[in-house]
Amino acid sequence: MRIVVTNCNTTQEMTAEIVRGARSAAGQGTTVTGLTPAWGPESAEGWLDSYLSAAAVLDTLRTHDGPPYDAVVMAGFGEHGREGVRELVDVPVVDITEAAAHLACLLGRRYGVVTTLERSRGQIEDSLELAGVGRNCAAVVGTGLGVLDLGDTGRTQAAFLAAAERARDAGAEVLVLGCAGMTGLQRAVGEKLGLPVVDGVAAAVKLAEALVTMGLRTSRAGSLAKPVPKRRTWGAGRD
Amino acid sequence: MRIVVTNCNTTQEMTAEIVRGARSAAGQGTTVTGLTPAWGPESAEGWLDSYLSAAAVLDTLRTHDGPPYDAVVMAGFGEHGREGVRELVDVPVVDITEAAAHLACLLGRRYGVVTTLERSRGQIEDSLELAGVGRNCAAVVGTGLGVLDLGDTGRTQAAFLAAAERARDAGAEVLVLGCAGMTGLQRAVGEKLGLPVVDGVAAAVKLAEALVTMGLRTSRAGSLAKPVPKRRTWGAGRD
Amino acid sequence: MRIVVTNCNTTQEMTAEIVRGARSAAGQGTTVTGLTPAWGPESAEGWLDSYLSAAAVLDTLRTHDGPPYDAVVMAGFGEHGREGVRELVDVPVVDITEAAAHLACLLGRRYGVVTTLERSRGQIEDSLELAGVGRNCAAVVGTGLGVLDLGDTGRTQAAFLAAAERARDAGAEVLVLGCAGMTGLQRAVGEKLGLPVVDGVAAAVKLAEALVTMGLRTSRAGSLAKPVPKRRTWGAGRD
Amino acid sequence: MRIVVTNCNTTQEMTAEIVRGARSAAGQGTTVTGLTPAWGPESAEGWLDSYLSAAAVLDTLRTHDGPPYDAVVMAGFGEHGREGVRELVDVPVVDITEAAAHLACLLGRRYGVVTTLERSRGQIEDSLELAGVGRNCAAVVGTGLGVLDLGDTGRTQAAFLAAAERARDAGAEVLVLGCAGMTGLQRAVGEKLGLPVVDGVAAAVKLAEALVTMGLRTSRAGSLAKPVPKRRTWGAGRD
Amino acid sequence: MRIVVTNCNTTQEMTAEIVRGARSAAGQGTTVTGLTPAWGPESAEGWLDSYLSAAAVLDTLRTHDGPPYDAVVMAGFGEHGREGVRELVDVPVVDITEAAAHLACLLGRRYGVVTTLERSRGQIEDSLELAGVGRNCAAVVGTGLGVLDLGDTGRTQAAFLAAAERARDAGAEVLVLGCAGMTGLQRAVGEKLGLPVVDGVAAAVKLAEALVTMGLRTSRAGSLAKPVPKRRTWGAGRD
Amino acid sequence: MRIVVTNCNTTQEMTAEIVRGARSAAGQGTTVTGLTPAWGPESAEGWLDSYLSAAAVLDTLRTHDGPPYDAVVMAGFGEHGREGVRELVDVPVVDITEAAAHLACLLGRRYGVVTTLERSRGQIEDSLELAGVGRNCAAVVGTGLGVLDLGDTGRTQAAFLAAAERARDAGAEVLVLGCAGMTGLQRAVGEKLGLPVVDGVAAAVKLAEALVTMGLRTSRAGSLAKPVPKRRTWGAGRD
Repeated sequence: MRIVVTNCNTTQEMTAEIVRGARSAAGQGTTVTGLTPAWGPESAEGWLDSYLSAAAVLDTLRTHDGPPYDAVVMAGFGEHGREGVRELVDVPVVDITEAAAHLACLLGRRYGVVTTLERSRGQIEDSLELAGVGRNCAAVVGTGLGVLDLGDTGRTQAAFLAAAERARDAGAEVLVLGCAGMTGLQRAVGEKLGLPVVDGVAAAVKLAEALVTMGLRTSRAGSLAKPVPKRRTWGAGRD
Repeated sequence: MRIVVTNCNTTQEMTAEIVRGARSAAGQGTTVTGLTPAWGPESAEGWLDSYLSAAAVLDTLRTHDGPPYDAVVMAGFGEHGREGVRELVDVPVVDITEAAAHLACLLGRRYGVVTTLERSRGQIEDSLELAGVGRNCAAVVGTGLGVLDLGDTGRTQAAFLAAAERARDAGAEVLVLGCAGMTGLQRAVGEKLGLPVVDGVAAAVKLAEALVTMGLRTSRAGSLAKPVPKRRTWGAGRD
Repeated sequence: MRIVVTNCNTTQEMTAEIVRGARSAAGQGTTVTGLTPAWGPESAEGWLDSYLSAAAVLDTLRTHDGPPYDAVVMAGFGEHGREGVRELVDVPVVDITEAAAHLACLLGRRYGVVTTLERSRGQIEDSLELAGVGRNCAAVVGTGLGVLDLGDTGRTQAAFLAAAERARDAGAEVLVLGCAGMTGLQRAVGEKLGLPVVDGVAAAVKLAEALVTMGLRTSRAGSLAKPVPKRRTWGAGRD
Repeated sequence: MRIVVTNCNTTQEMTAEIVRGARSAAGQGTTVTGLTPAWGPESAEGWLDSYLSAAAVLDTLRTHDGPPYDAVVMAGFGEHGREGVRELVDVPVVDITEAAAHLACLLGRRYGVVTTLERSRGQIEDSLELAGVGRNCAAVVGTGLGVLDLGDTGRTQAAFLAAAERARDAGAEVLVLGCAGMTGLQRAVGEKLGLPVVDGVAAAVKLAEALVTMGLRTSRAGSLAKPVPKRRTWGAGRD
Repeated sequence: MRIVVTNCNTTQEMTAEIVRGARSAAGQGTTVTGLTPAWGPESAEGWLDSYLSAAAVLDTLRTHDGPPYDAVVMAGFGEHGREGVRELVDVPVVDITEAAAHLACLLGRRYGVVTTLERSRGQIEDSLELAGVGRNCAAVVGTGLGVLDLGDTGRTQAAFLAAAERARDAGAEVLVLGCAGMTGLQRAVGEKLGLPVVDGVAAAVKLAEALVTMGLRTSRAGSLAKPVPKRRTWGAGRD
Repeated sequence: MRIVVTNCNTTQEMTAEIVRGARSAAGQGTTVTGLTPAWGPESAEGWLDSYLSAAAVLDTLRTHDGPPYDAVVMAGFGEHGREGVRELVDVPVVDITEAAAHLACLLGRRYGVVTTLERSRGQIEDSLELAGVGRNCAAVVGTGLGVLDLGDTGRTQAAFLAAAERARDAGAEVLVLGCAGMTGLQRAVGEKLGLPVVDGVAAAVKLAEALVTMGLRTSRAGSLAKPVPKRRTWGAGRD
């Protein structure tokens, strides 16, 4: 099967990084294609970025003319757009935020999320709540690092460990990597922490594969019906 | 004071209608300016439209070069974007969804929302929940009418009354008009129903005036800090 | 329009203080009249006081024979009685507890309340919950000061700032003054804190003006119907 | 031990009825004394009545100069005042609303309340919620009968059975008599319904006996501390 | 009346201890019989133990051929099985977890539970939530002591006091002894703490007596109907 | 990898049926082994059965001496035991109840469960709530059929469709088969309903495969630590 993984920002290096993570999780016979939005923010940090990203990802998928695909993975942690993509495409759609939480619920009684900036906490909490998996989230904790700072591995690990301890003190028995750019970190820090660490990109790939294998698609009977045909313009193209 | 009212879609007639409603609610000394997004959907019905609308409204405000204004009223019922606009502008921002609910809470123990299509129910419920006023919402009920069908007054009134009865049976003591395009209907149907009917556009104008008069602005200390400076592109301009 | 502001206790100095605050928030053309209950507690601190206050305020409004008024503002933070007053009078009723919370929700994702004694916390939490705005309340924090201690401005400010920091640490992005006697404090401490501070008296005046202007009244179709005519005695008049 | 049962209204026949119910539930060695407020409403139906009743009950207990007692049972279903009485007296206080719900939770997964007027529903729901036992309440259903109509046994039974079926359809496995004046009805209707029916007066007497026997008293460490000494006036004595 | 108290583990000394506690709480005319499961864990600490205990207690009651009894008290704090026992026997069933919480709700606005191992916290929280009394639980705090360590009174008291302070800081105004083996501790520590302390065994005995006296039994109309007759085998008898 | 699927009852035909369902969902390279408890109920319908089943499944896994396995799937819809199995085994454990709900959340805004007897509703609701996925469950609806009646395909389909419509009316956009014995039904009824139908057995197999592939295991840092070594007896072996 073919899974399209959409980055939520325009930074191609991050798309590449995400695709690497997705591929290492994908099963045999699964092809992963990355999609970088042609417009939007270079990183998504805050609500303005998130709404801009949501529209850009929708436009990118809408106008994508690659080979057909079987599922979409949306790789923006805590970002908006998933219900819109579910309306748009006819294949299953899995967002990494919800995916990580779904798997984390299977591994412990409460989970915690470690993310980048503190300001993202609200968006992530809202995203988990609306996805229906907020109940067992013990805490969302920021590391203070920006998305584009995650390249510095040593600093990232140290900040992650400090934040993880706060999540554990709040009752988390399982951790979730709260940023697509953290993919890879779970191996490094899992052992030190003695807690399972769930990476949303890998989780979403596995859940997407599961839905495709089971022949399941988004329900059209209710709030996620196909978009009504109408006139829409997708951006003025100004910076 | 000057209030900018943003329509959530590109239909200028609807902007005009909304501005009329806003002006009739505005106090002496309040100037209301309507803003129609240069891009986006011609009506917002569903999540794809809503995310597209959110980005378009943000871009429209971002690039707006009219006279300074004191508050923004966002006139899309149940639509996304309010937190993004709060990050973007330095003046108070009031969304008609939350505004109507805030006032409705003051008039009865439970309120209900009557909206257009059933598919919008989920978005409205989510919007009220995240705004912090979902608890006393007894029901969100659809009339089955599309946004652009609301011109037919007789049909709209009949559908509204039928839906309103369902909301009342679910415990609503107060009704909220669940679409900016319904502005004006409260007068016509209020008497027949024997229930107070709150129009979100008027409610938002009054709340915006209140915040401005009291000198209150969006908190920057937390999730609604100013957007981080970075590279962003606002749309590819394709239909 | 004419707004009657009811103090929740028998201390006339506090009524005067509250009326000053209400007048400075009121719009042009709004007349504010203060009403001090002829009986009740000299300050309301705890549930016994609150229930006594509720009955006294009801009796005071019931027997008030001043000029007609257009709205009632109830100036007891966290005190009981608002639903009873809504049953009694035919004009909109706004309680300062809920009013402050409604506006605070528009200014940040979570708000906190700073009040007088720790023992009032429970009443305030209950009041916010039942008003339908408890969800986004991050914390209610006491300063340790009694209502009648608030005259000492320096001590009050210091205690307020300390309590406010605890609320911010709990996630509050906006603060609410949790006592009618704190009116005026928002100007002094707002700058130091870097957070918006909402005064309930001013908030309630603006919300009352909004409801009156919009022609909205309490719903009679449900739990807030007019009191059934019957024999009632209002107190034995013993100290 | 001696239990004082406070009626919430001034109707002495109802006090007598309640005392009969309380005595038939009381254990050997328990003396039950009824207390009719010297002022207040002749029946409590709605919030105004409820707040008036709360103050009257507090005043009645405050000025009561009978023999010492070991517990107070407050016999007003859904009425206010229990936290105030807990502050006032040094003995355990049990309200019939919460008492019935506590026992009902032990008899089935969800319970329902059948009350008098529909307008009382809100007060009862709020009372259960704040008492901490609202979660397992499936429904509060009104019979349409006023408190003082309950004398007509045949009509009351028929209305109760009809309301009880609505509660059962909503998931109630256990029923609660939602009015002190319904005491006695549980025997008559229990068999017909095939559901356990809990009478709040009897439940409160048993819970009060339990607390007294166990030597438990209201916590003073927090929101229910003794009232602060201060000047209070209890009513102007006007009708 | 005769009350059967079931220990949740196979340690007869603990049954004896529990029976002592139950008897000291029981009213005149109440006979208390202890029942030690013939199989199961020697102490219940964690979910595996709890499920094993639930089946063992059910089997023990199912095959018990002593004199008839009027109620069952289940003396395993936070352990599973209560709904199963309610299906099985025709008399009222009260679990000490819920019993303690029900009474605690009558004594303060929030209560806290002090238990043995931290790992039991989750089970206790779940048990309270499903019993319908989780709302007013401020915290469940572990002492770090195992069930079978509770014999060391001095150490137990010290650990209890330390844990109790954490519960109080979290808002608890009342404490619950979170282990049947703690019975007796309430007298010793109640004074030092200045908080009421509720013992679940005593609470359950009083609630069982109340239900029996009131003639109330478990509802059969819904989820707690009698078990369907069918083939069942109760264990393979292996260690 | 090797997945052990545990039936919750002693009916080997049902184990065979479940294994068939599991195998048809399993990926290449996944071996599925069924495990029928040596003791317990012949079908699990109600709480007594469920607790008996939980202990029997734990004992069966505890004493199982087959080849090593990589994950456990627990095939009892709404049955107890999952946390106990998580403590017991060192590999991931997925219960079909939670598994179906996790995937259903990805396919629509609200899901509904169609189960066998109405009496199972409570157990299923509790199971979903504690698994952290109860929020988006719109309804659990019974068909009135017993577990062992499911062999009659025509009757089962008709009853399922009728129940499914009730779930849809309650807001469900996705359906979950609420009994392991319903596996296979999703193909037959999915088309007629126009809604996605999720089978818990298949869902759990895919989630187990995902966790194993990702190298994730149950957290030992908290409530799901390994059982403490102690003396335990597993049943008296009486019928």
